[in-house]
Parts: sequence; C-alpha cells; structure tokens
Amino acid sequence: MANADGRLRLGAFLSGSGAHTGAWRHPLADADASLNVQRYQRYAQTLERGRFDALFLNDNVSVGELAPEVLARGPYSLRWDPLILLPALAMVTRHIGLIATANTSYNQPYNVARSFASLDQLSNGRAGWNLVTALVGAENFNHDQPLAHAERYARAEEFLDVVTGLWDSWADDAFVLDKPSGAWLDVERMHVLNHRGRHFQVQGPMNAPRPVQGWPVIAQAGSSEAGRELAARSAELVFTAQQTLGEAQAFYQDVHGRMARYGRAPDTLKVFPGVSPIVGRTASEAEEKHQQLLELVDPHSALKQLSFLLDLGIDLAALPLEAPVPLPEQPASTERHKSRQQLVLDLIRRQRPTVGQLLRTLGAGGHRLVVGTPGQIVDELAAWYHEGAADGFNILFTHLPGGVDDFVELVVPQLQRQRLFREDYEGATLRENLGLRRVANRHFLE
Amino acid sequence: MANADGRLRLGAFLSGSGAHTGAWRHPLADADASLNVQRYQRYAQTLERGRFDALFLNDNVSVGELAPEVLARGPYSLRWDPLILLPALAMVTRHIGLIATANTSYNQPYNVARSFASLDQLSNGRAGWNLVTALVGAENFNHDQPLAHAERYARAEEFLDVVTGLWDSWADDAFVLDKPSGAWLDVERMHVLNHRGRHFQVQGPMNAPRPVQGWPVIAQAGSSEAGRELAARSAELVFTAQQTLGEAQAFYQDVHGRMARYGRAPDTLKVFPGVSPIVGRTASEAEEKHQQLLELVDPHSALKQLSFLLDLGIDLAALPLEAPVPLPEQPASTERHKSRQQLVLDLIRRQRPTVGQLLRTLGAGGHRLVVGTPGQIVDELAAWYHEGAADGFNILFTHLPGGVDDFVELVVPQLQRQRLFREDYEGATLRENLGLRRVANRHFLE
Repeated sequence: MANADGRLRLGAFLSGSGAHTGAWRHPLADADASLNVQRYQRYAQTLERGRFDALFLNDNVSVGELAPEVLARGPYSLRWDPLILLPALAMVTRHIGLIATANTSYNQPYNVARSFASLDQLSNGRAGWNLVTALVGAENFNHDQPLAHAERYARAEEFLDVVTGLWDSWADDAFVLDKPSGAWLDVERMHVLNHRGRHFQVQGPMNAPRPVQGWPVIAQAGSSEAGRELAARSAELVFTAQQTLGEAQAFYQDVHGRMARYGRAPDTLKVFPGVSPIVGRTASEAEEKHQQLLELVDPHSALKQLSFLLDLGIDLAALPLEAPVPLPEQPASTERHKSRQQLVLDLIRRQRPTVGQLLRTLGAGGHRLVVGTPGQIVDELAAWYHEGAADGFNILFTHLPGGVDDFVELVVPQLQRQRLFREDYEGATLRENLGLRRVANRHFLE
Repeated sequence: MANADGRLRLGAFLSGSGAHTGAWRHPLADADASLNVQRYQRYAQTLERGRFDALFLNDNVSVGELAPEVLARGPYSLRWDPLILLPALAMVTRHIGLIATANTSYNQPYNVARSFASLDQLSNGRAGWNLVTALVGAENFNHDQPLAHAERYARAEEFLDVVTGLWDSWADDAFVLDKPSGAWLDVERMHVLNHRGRHFQVQGPMNAPRPVQGWPVIAQAGSSEAGRELAARSAELVFTAQQTLGEAQAFYQDVHGRMARYGRAPDTLKVFPGVSPIVGRTASEAEEKHQQLLELVDPHSALKQLSFLLDLGIDLAALPLEAPVPLPEQPASTERHKSRQQLVLDLIRRQRPTVGQLLRTLGAGGHRLVVGTPGQIVDELAAWYHEGAADGFNILFTHLPGGVDDFVELVVPQLQRQRLFREDYEGATLRENLGLRRVANRHFLE
C-alpha cells in the first residue's frame, strides 16, 4: 500500500529550538527560535531545498504545568502561534506545505474554517490542519477541570463536520467577479450549512473563498481508539509515535482497516510515524552527537514532564536515575494522551529500563530515535516504508537548525540516490505533492 | 492637543477591493483582492512608500445577511482573515504598522492575546489590535439572537482586561536563555494572572513572549456612550466616522475629557476620523472620478446594506431614488451600531436628502467623502488637524489599488511639502511612529 510513485514522503515537525529535551542548549541550536522569525524562515527555506512535503507546527494553549523548577529549566513557556507563523512562512517559500495545529476544544469552528481557508488561499494551496483535542489548557478557557477524553473526541467530530461543511459553502466557480455586468456571485452556487448539533449551531456560509485545495489537508495525531476511528473517518495524514516496526505495522493495518466502513480507499490516508534522526558521517560521530545532546538534558525537569505525560501517578523525578522504572499495579488509564501512555508502557514492559535509560530513549519528545550514518538512517526509513509501516515520516529534528542542516545535507541526497524520495516537487499544492486528490464540493459535483 | 511633532498621522483602512460601494467594478480596482495575496502585498508596499503609520483591516464573522440579491451584486461574501493576512504582509514590509480587527464577542481572550503577541513578535513591534464587539455573526456562533449592545460591551471590557493581563505575564527580561547554565527563564519574572470574572476564568501565563511593544497598540472604533467610555479607559487609537468638523471636534473633546477619570493623559489617545478621498489633478477631474464610481454602484444592494446598518425599520431599497429619506417617528434605538445610526440620522436631519442623495453621500462606507485636488484635500485634513478634530486620519481608499496610488502619488507629497507629514519613519515600532509610549509591565516596573 506504498505510495503510487514508490517514493516516501517527508514532513518536518518543528517545535521551539528542536524536539530533543536538551535542544535549546545545543551549540548548533537557536535558543531564540520562538522569538525571532528569521530562524523559522531559515528552517523553512532549508526544508524546501530538501524537498520536504510539509512542515508542521504542533501547539498547546498553556505552558502545560506551572511547577516553577520545570519552567525555569526548559522551553515550555514560549511558542509561536502556528496560525500567525505559517502565513509569514508562506511568503518566503513557494512549495512546502504548511500544517498548523489547531485544537477543537477551545476554538469555534467558524473561526478555524476561515483561518485555514485564508491560509490555503494565501499559500496557493499549501495549507494543512492538524486537528487535535487539547490535552492541556482548561485553566485558560473557563474550565475548572480538563475536558474528559470521550467528551473531547465527541466535540472534535462535530467540530470537523462543521469546518468541512463551511469549506463547502461555495462551488469552485461561484464567484463570477464580472465587472461589466456587476455580477459578483452566482448565488445558485452557494450552500448554506445550517448546522444544528449538540455542541455547535452554525448557519454559514463561510465569508471566505473555497480553499484552493477544496479542503486543506486534514492531519490528525491521536492514536487512541477514538483517535483511530476519527482518523479512519476523516484524516488524510496521520502522525504516530510507534517505537517498533511491529507496532507501526499493526497501527498501519488497523487504521487502514477501519476506513472501508466510511467508504474510503486506503490510499487516501497517509501514515507518518515520527522519527528523530541523529546523523553522523560515521556511526561513532552520530553516537557522539547523541551523547552531546544527552549531556544537555536537565533530568529533573525532563522527568517531571515525562511523568505528567505518562499520568501513572509516579513521579519519575523523585527516583534515582539507576532505579528501574516501576510498572503500575493498576491497569493504566488517563484522560490525557491515551495512546502515548500506552506506547510508553509497552516500551517499559519490553525493555524494563532504568529511569536514566528511559530518559535516554525518550529524549526526542517520546518519538523513535534513530542514530547513525546517512546510510543507516535511510535503511531504517526504507524498511518501515517497504514493510507496510509508513507512507512517509514526520521528522523530529533534535535541534534547529543543526538537525535540519544535517538531514538535508546528508540524508536527503542518499534517499534521492536510492530513488526513495523526489528530486523535485511533483505538483503545486500540498495535496498534489502528497498524492492526495483535491476535494470536490459535495453540493456541486462537476 | 495636536501631536508633539506637529505632524498628522495616517492609517489606511483596507477592505476588499476598496471602501466605495462600487469599488470592485472600477477599472483600476482588483476585483480579486480577497483572493490573491499579491494584491494586498502591493497595497502594503505602496503605503509604506507613502510613509503611512499603519494599515488596518476591518472584519466580520459573517456574510452579514443572506438576501441573495444583495450577495449576488456586492463583495460582502469574501474577505481575508485579518490575522492570517497581516503576518504575511509583515514579511514583505519593514515599517508600516499592521492593525487587525478581532472581535470580543465570539473569541476567547487567551487565543487573541497569543495571536497578537505572536504578530507583534513577528513584525518586530508593528502590531495593533482593533477591538470590536461583533455586530453580526451570532448565527455562526451558537446564538439564536444577536448579543445585546450592553452585554457586548460588558464582555468586551472584561475581555480586554484578560488580554492585557496576559500580555503582562512576563517581565521584558524574564527569558534568560543561558545555554551554559541551562537557565531558560527567571521564574521570579513571571506573573500568573489568575483572572476570575463574570465572563472569563483565565489562569495564565500566556505561552508567548511579552510583545515587543509591551502591548500591541489598542485601537477601537465604537463611538456610542459605551464605546466612548471604553475608548477613554483603554484605547490608544480611535477610528471615528463624523461627517462635519463640529461633530468631530465635539467627539474629540468628549472622549479626551473622559480620560482623566482613568488617570490617562490626553496625548495617549489618538483620534483618527475616517476620510475617503477622491483625488484629481483638477477639481473637475476629481468630480469625474467620483461620478465614475457612482455609476458602478448597484443601488438596490447598497440601499439594502444601508437599511440594515441604520436599523430604523425602513427599507430604503423599496423607495424611489427621488423620494426624501423618511425620518423615523420613534426615537431611534438599535442593538447594532448605535453611534453610526446616530451619525447618519444627524446627517438626514441636517441635509434632508433624497434616497439617491444619501446613497451618494454615504457611498464610501458611511465615511466622509472628500473630492478635490491634492491641495483641496490637504486643506481639509489640515483644518481638522489644526482645529482640534483629529490627530490623524484613517484613509478609506475608494478603490484598490487606484485610490492608494492616487493618494501616495499626489496627496502625500503635498502633505510633506506643507510639513504636515513625515518624510521618513521616526521609529522602529508602530508605537514609536504614532508617538505612543511602550507599555511597561505593571508587575515589573523598572
């Protein structure tokens, strides 16, 4: 079920000064990446030179937690608003896709539909929406308690229906703009949504043009039961975090297997596992680079963050680094990030690591770390791609710009030599490059 | 109470293909201005060459009304999302301020605070927020009825307190970013808002840096009793729509007179009446240009729009153009745009126009139309500036780019020759150019 042209796809996950917990302190990292737009401009332009399909910005609507000692030691407190940064990057690039995260928990669908329609227009069809339910942020949006997982997903489904409904407000040829006759719009080519649901009542139409791509590409990252179902129903790009080939193959099959009941063909959904590469010209250089990053990690704050994510009631920061990670006595449960909790628990059961080993393994934000030469990294990517675990990869650069520069300079040419990756962009829009069809308006089929 | 340097300021109000009702059909107008970002890129660059302080995008979260014959004939159905367009324009300009409208009725303050903080960072201190309460859009945000005027303003006040509170989350020097020691943030320089009010409970801190300007410039456009009070308390830039010098002087004095009770000095608030110039090299050329625009107006849809704005229960589109505009028997009242209703009523009482004459007078979106040579237009602006009616003007170009080109080519040099306008930008930020001080953080005074 690989891509029709036999080439894998690449997304770039950009966050702060990089994905590794120690990123911002790296000599080849911009500590001020969240303060200086020229930094991100440079990353975007380098990635475009490397023919990446898209860059992707994650998001949170909160500093996450307030423990002062954690905030003091790590870059959790600053980030760009993705929907402000991406329009700016659209103006300094021409080909690369621009995927912003926007949550369905603390936004209104009319606003989100407009923002992405405008971004798609502005970028000539390069926009994508990474739909997430908010893991944190209740305290900033009138809630005493975080929303429960099931409630978040129920709202997300209806939210998505409203947004896509608003994107179909106009036929592609609705706007006539005929100066001599004064005809602006063919009102027969307008559809008024009139959505009345449990969470939202939205009349429409959207006061923005139909997006260039029909709909911006819909990405999704939750891999819980509810997340997989939402992905099978609606997502076109799925970001995942499996650590092993077996887990990734199982996920790939599972989510594609769910699509038939929604009348969707499997190749309309692309799975991008996250990979965090550390590239050296030799294996030992790569290992040294990894060691350099690990020495920059602040174990206490990193373990506090990991404990929050795991949500097992265990404070890893209170344990010695040599202690084995305790396994929970109760079956695990969380209202936060269900699938990530499961992946880390699986890893703990499989490897029985010490606290220090777990920190080392999950230093790249919990994604799979691949340390090696360009050839070794390409082999890893090729194996997952050819063995039914991935249509492409979301690359989490350990540090910015060093990690991007290494990858574009060393790994991309190797992928191209092995005909695993494009030499040039295939199309003008993100959909065209990903091999996804433009979405026709359901109300005005040609 | 003119500006300290004796120079007036200029803002550019950009909307669709121009402010005049017939704008989009003009031969020198871009009918596709809401579809093609290169159009707005060009306007912004021309305005910057003309040394404008700022460009300003208005907004609505609805097509306004659904009467198909109105939508069919005018550009009410398409607009850019201001917070998507302005980051893009920030990348192709260096000096001009960028003021986006965002409403307080159907947004959340945490999101708005972040967006503007990011925009201010990205533009190196050129952002402004035009705070409005939403006149339309209830139907797209879960409401069966529009919010009442008083309720809109009560929410707006609290919304503004939350946003400015979040902007003060960090001292200017809170972020240490010291790679060797691993100190990211001095947590003693963080302030957690903990706002608990009637409409909003927002903990904070904001996960974005303190804006470059301290706070983005706060603009406001409502001139009702509640709007004036909000302006006196909080606004730094006020957009108004008075038609006569006397009305404008009265407004200027009234709003400045209210500031003392909030402990504010009068020169911290700049009043910008709206002016829509039609410039000709001769008076008769200007008159011809005006006539050309009027011939492009679709009277039916323009009168439908005007009737909606007036909200007097009178359908002007149902009357002959030769009929006198009827005056309402009841004292007027509206839950929509109170001050605009009042201004138009005053105009009707003063001039007793026919329907056709009213349409002609208010063709520029209800703002004051000034038709003449560069010298005549400069005289008009100078009179208002010197006679205590204005600190600057919000220029509503009748059509884009023609109106911008005329103004920058013909009027700006004349203003400069008379030393009424800058030759070069005074500062780096919007505040510096407007002559407004950077806002110190209330929690961390130097």
